[in-house]
Amino acid sequence: MEIINKRCSNKGDDDHLVVDIYPLSNYYFTSKPASSHVAAFKDDQTLADHALRLKSNYDARGMRTCVEAVLLVELFKHPHLLLLQVNNNIYKLPGGRLRPGESDVDGLKRKLLSKLSADDDNHRTKWEVGECIGTWWKSDFETLPYPYLPSSGKAPKECTKLYLVKLPSSRDFVVPKNYKLLAVPMCQLHESRKTYGSIIAGIPQLLSRFSINIVHT
Amino acid sequence: MEIINKRCSNKGDDDHLVVDIYPLSNYYFTSKPASSHVAAFKDDQTLADHALRLKSNYDARGMRTCVEAVLLVELFKHPHLLLLQVNNNIYKLPGGRLRPGESDVDGLKRKLLSKLSADDDNHRTKWEVGECIGTWWKSDFETLPYPYLPSSGKAPKECTKLYLVKLPSSRDFVVPKNYKLLAVPMCQLHESRKTYGSIIAGIPQLLSRFSINIVHT
Repeated sequence: MEIINKRCSNKGDDDHLVVDIYPLSNYYFTSKPASSHVAAFKDDQTLADHALRLKSNYDARGMRTCVEAVLLVELFKHPHLLLLQVNNNIYKLPGGRLRPGESDVDGLKRKLLSKLSADDDNHRTKWEVGECIGTWWKSDFETLPYPYLPSSGKAPKECTKLYLVKLPSSRDFVVPKNYKLLAVPMCQLHESRKTYGSIIAGIPQLLSRFSINIVHT
Repeated sequence: MEIINKRCSNKGDDDHLVVDIYPLSNYYFTSKPASSHVAAFKDDQTLADHALRLKSNYDARGMRTCVEAVLLVELFKHPHLLLLQVNNNIYKLPGGRLRPGESDVDGLKRKLLSKLSADDDNHRTKWEVGECIGTWWKSDFETLPYPYLPSSGKAPKECTKLYLVKLPSSRDFVVPKNYKLLAVPMCQLHESRKTYGSIIAGIPQLLSRFSINIVHT
């Protein structure tokens, strides 16, 4: 094992948390049948329909909470984020909405199994959900997310929580056919809010307090 | 003591770190003679001169490390960040450059005493420096800062580390006459990268993983 890059070499009292990442080539990628969730999303004919559905869900169940995974790999000696691409121009973190009463960690593990593991996996793949690195709120059904509670004092309608998920040195990924799994470099994310949206574009910042160790096994 | 607002009320396994903040009206503000550091800054006639000075400092001492404080207060039931305003249009976090061999925490305490305490304070004011919440790097003397190491593999020239500094329920601030101390709401910071720069505009995101408790004493 060789550590070829260590972020932030500083003096003394600096106990940066260390995140080990492994080369993309350590991982194996295959596909499985399309996920029904995306099919449902396509059927949402208009944004107005979508907002209406969110509103009726809010009335029935309260604030919608989404949990999403930040998964990192190394490519060209630089950390890359794993993203799912849908319909060519939509980028999503692996994750999704919690069921009523479900914990963040259980919900995220369920979503990672459905989006990144074989359907007959039966929870054999372990997902190590680490700490929450950021939270975004929507104060309305059609607004952009903000990284703070609505200052109006209005109840938030949606909350998206990002969790750092540590990958083992090797793993199989099994991705639904209607998604593409991409590895995107930090520098490209940081500068492309229009392409990826505020939440994904902000991830390099949220990770900047960690020391990222690139490990070659 | 009454807690009137608690960020992110979620189920079970969510152990968000809690940050207590107090009303702006709990703090007292007075001024002291102008800081010599700002005078020196004004004498830097051009940006080119400034870059030249940074380069010669880098050649002599290596990467420049700055430590900066994120100090929060409550106003109108919303968290506000304390910022120093210089020359009407420059906004800075309280903090500054480390001396050679100085630790982050010692350096930040020294800077907080010089920028926010009385000159005869003799370290009586205690500054509680908490965790590092983010780090930004410059790969060159005149470039913008980025929240990741240069992907070119080039050695970074400057590193800015943001520390959360917890304020007690009450305190005197003594600010040099050439600075104005402002309390700026999260929502204004997040949307004004052009006014405040990327580092300050990104602070709401870096704080989004904390639960902010507004405490009225």
